[in-house]
Amino acid sequence: MFTMIFDSGSGKPMYRQLYEYIKNEIIVGNLKGGEKLPSKRTLASHLKISTVTVETAYEQLAAEGYIYSLPKKGFYAEKGLESKTGSTALGNSVSEIHENSAKKSFSYDFGTSGVDTGCFPFSTWAKLMRTVISEENEKLLQSVDSRGSAELRKAVAEHLYSFRGISISPENIIIGAGTEYLTSLIMLLLGHDKCYAVENPGYKRTYRLFKRSAGRTAAIPQDLSGISVKQLRQTDADVVHTTPSHNFPLGSVMPISRRKELLDWTYEKNDRYIIEDEYDSEFRFTGSPIPSLFSLDSHGRVIYINTFTKTLAPSMRISYMILPDRLMEKFRRELDFCSNTVPLFEQLTLARFISEGFFERHINRIKKIYKSRRDLLISSLKQYMPDGSFEIKGENSGLHFLMKMNSSASEEQFIDAAAKKDIRVRGLSEYYQNSSDYSGNACIVIGYTQLPSEDIAKAVSLLADTWRQLL
Amino acid sequence: MFTMIFDSGSGKPMYRQLYEYIKNEIIVGNLKGGEKLPSKRTLASHLKISTVTVETAYEQLAAEGYIYSLPKKGFYAEKGLESKTGSTALGNSVSEIHENSAKKSFSYDFGTSGVDTGCFPFSTWAKLMRTVISEENEKLLQSVDSRGSAELRKAVAEHLYSFRGISISPENIIIGAGTEYLTSLIMLLLGHDKCYAVENPGYKRTYRLFKRSAGRTAAIPQDLSGISVKQLRQTDADVVHTTPSHNFPLGSVMPISRRKELLDWTYEKNDRYIIEDEYDSEFRFTGSPIPSLFSLDSHGRVIYINTFTKTLAPSMRISYMILPDRLMEKFRRELDFCSNTVPLFEQLTLARFISEGFFERHINRIKKIYKSRRDLLISSLKQYMPDGSFEIKGENSGLHFLMKMNSSASEEQFIDAAAKKDIRVRGLSEYYQNSSDYSGNACIVIGYTQLPSEDIAKAVSLLADTWRQLL
Repeated sequence: MFTMIFDSGSGKPMYRQLYEYIKNEIIVGNLKGGEKLPSKRTLASHLKISTVTVETAYEQLAAEGYIYSLPKKGFYAEKGLESKTGSTALGNSVSEIHENSAKKSFSYDFGTSGVDTGCFPFSTWAKLMRTVISEENEKLLQSVDSRGSAELRKAVAEHLYSFRGISISPENIIIGAGTEYLTSLIMLLLGHDKCYAVENPGYKRTYRLFKRSAGRTAAIPQDLSGISVKQLRQTDADVVHTTPSHNFPLGSVMPISRRKELLDWTYEKNDRYIIEDEYDSEFRFTGSPIPSLFSLDSHGRVIYINTFTKTLAPSMRISYMILPDRLMEKFRRELDFCSNTVPLFEQLTLARFISEGFFERHINRIKKIYKSRRDLLISSLKQYMPDGSFEIKGENSGLHFLMKMNSSASEEQFIDAAAKKDIRVRGLSEYYQNSSDYSGNACIVIGYTQLPSEDIAKAVSLLADTWRQLL
Repeated sequence: MFTMIFDSGSGKPMYRQLYEYIKNEIIVGNLKGGEKLPSKRTLASHLKISTVTVETAYEQLAAEGYIYSLPKKGFYAEKGLESKTGSTALGNSVSEIHENSAKKSFSYDFGTSGVDTGCFPFSTWAKLMRTVISEENEKLLQSVDSRGSAELRKAVAEHLYSFRGISISPENIIIGAGTEYLTSLIMLLLGHDKCYAVENPGYKRTYRLFKRSAGRTAAIPQDLSGISVKQLRQTDADVVHTTPSHNFPLGSVMPISRRKELLDWTYEKNDRYIIEDEYDSEFRFTGSPIPSLFSLDSHGRVIYINTFTKTLAPSMRISYMILPDRLMEKFRRELDFCSNTVPLFEQLTLARFISEGFFERHINRIKKIYKSRRDLLISSLKQYMPDGSFEIKGENSGLHFLMKMNSSASEEQFIDAAAKKDIRVRGLSEYYQNSSDYSGNACIVIGYTQLPSEDIAKAVSLLADTWRQLL
């Protein structure tokens, strides 16, 4: 039975005090879900208060869902509420999921996502943040153009011009909180009833996003030049997402001929569009750059998208896209109500980071670091692995490459053997919509942003050891 | 004819120098769109270079879309490129739209959006930002849980408990870059094929968002208690967006009976949900709080959503939502790939702002400021406007109220008369899906967040002057 002391000096009505007491008992778990509460009369007599007071408290608790009544039986505490405490325990089911989905961390991780944030010039960034706070001051509170701050759009336009040869007005740029957000915005702009196509193999996130929100989707096979336009023509795709500057995950660069073929497909019908995702175009190590689809396009059919997540840090959710004039007009007309999603403070800090030259310096620096890691990794692989046991593909650009194994062992066998040595690698077939879409020899995807140089030789010798049995 | 000097010491091939020269001529507008380029042979002879050099340059320009060829006619400069400069002129069409959509600013603005950022304790905020930079340091670069940082979710849970009596685990909270973003996330979670209902009159942004991305939508009429459940039953709505704590724009508070009726509607079918938007619940001036739908709900059918945009500043795009356990499990299972959209830095700063008590102090302070503005505004209206010429509604909560005019003049007449004195007011019929849905007397929506106290008497006397003819 509840035992409580009413505080007559609190100014709170007694029913409210009782209500709060019982609610707390339920939340902290003293009164378990499903447990029966004392009858109104019993409790009233026990606490020496009127039955009406108890009744009012019970009614409020029932109205708020803390207790429920069963006809002719009385009141019971609602189940599962003890987990819903203000600040301590976790909701059972949710916390379980949380634990299950927590990624296992490996001693050596050849994953393709992630950035080596240790390379980021944090002290410079922090200095710029402090400058922005003191110089911009309360201007930081003003609302922002739906496309993003003029300063950052200008800095991005200048960067694109000098770095990628893309000549575009800042007016055509939209800043957004991540590539997935911008992709959703594109769907909002072009319509959810369109058929959205992706590369297969490719980015699963983009495909999942399309799959959930678009009326129709298509997964287009790739050949050595990238997405197959021939296969694309056999679908009713309206919009195609592609990674021409460094195919994800195949690593290939789309040649100019395929680019033109893809653009031609777009021009054949009104309202066909390409989403060109240059997610890691900053990291081209050899060969001369091929003009972006956006630059090659003469009909305003390419939406260019890129992110700062890969070049700065994952916690900075800043991406951008360029819309051709016609789509930007449509955006301004129809979607101007979508407030910009990136805080002005981050936008102004990044604008300075770019326009004062720090971004270019940073890119050049990490490009060197990543290139030396890649070189070390490839030479270590050649040193430790048996001759002719593998072939490397897609290593001239971006932050990952493929190892095609000369072996009849399956991808799972390679991955499992690595995991036993606490090494994470991924198989190419993971990136296919159905893993059965891939039928060749085992092919391992090797990323090297998360593995410091000093660990590479060790990790590779362990890999070679454990894989020897499979080769 | 082009006149250029080749720089043999630049190391750049001649075709590339020519390509860059012509490209620049087009961008700066010396070569206008549609203008014919000299034939290859003529230009080669003019510049004393080989025809092959000109041909290569022209091909590159054509491939990148700067020029185009007409069969048997030659090459022409592409139209509209002079506008696409890297950093100077604007794209014509886009800049026109920009100008058209730029909001005219008024001397006196009774708009309902906007926040008086002058009231924000910026120096405290700036101090916290500096502390976060130096204390968190490079931790700021780490990636964030898809739901947002644990620190901010904990602070929000504690705030909700002490301020709104909502007892919830931080595990059920998702932080996102604005209410519209979170609304899109809800649609991604529940499915775009559902029928999404909104209040009519109501938030046009939400309706537009649903209209663009959902299979079906419904606009539900309201009565004095809020959204009509009777009317709701006549649609095939699956999800309903509602503003029970302060109806937008009617200003009413949904009584407990209607809340229960609405919840009952939800329980009648699986997969019916309520989105409870408490956009300005912090600003209740009189009367006791009614439990939120989220607290009243015992079946996990209410998604609670709120924003810091109204309480802090529009440039801080931070909103949050609470998902019931079942939906949070679904989110973790199916949408965990959606990266969180708010930078970690802002999340940690806001977490400290809340947990160190600054947020509560700020709310209490602006609540007083807004309340005194509201009181002054209402007393000024009573003083300057003819007796019995209007009636005030929905003034006890939130940051706007309604003036129902006792006049046969139309809303447009009132709005136009105000605009002539450089005063912005809005009419209630604007907030209906079709302005013909509203048939009563002219009703003016008065917001007071953007009008400083010292301007109120002046603005009201001007209004009274110009409206006299209509009363």
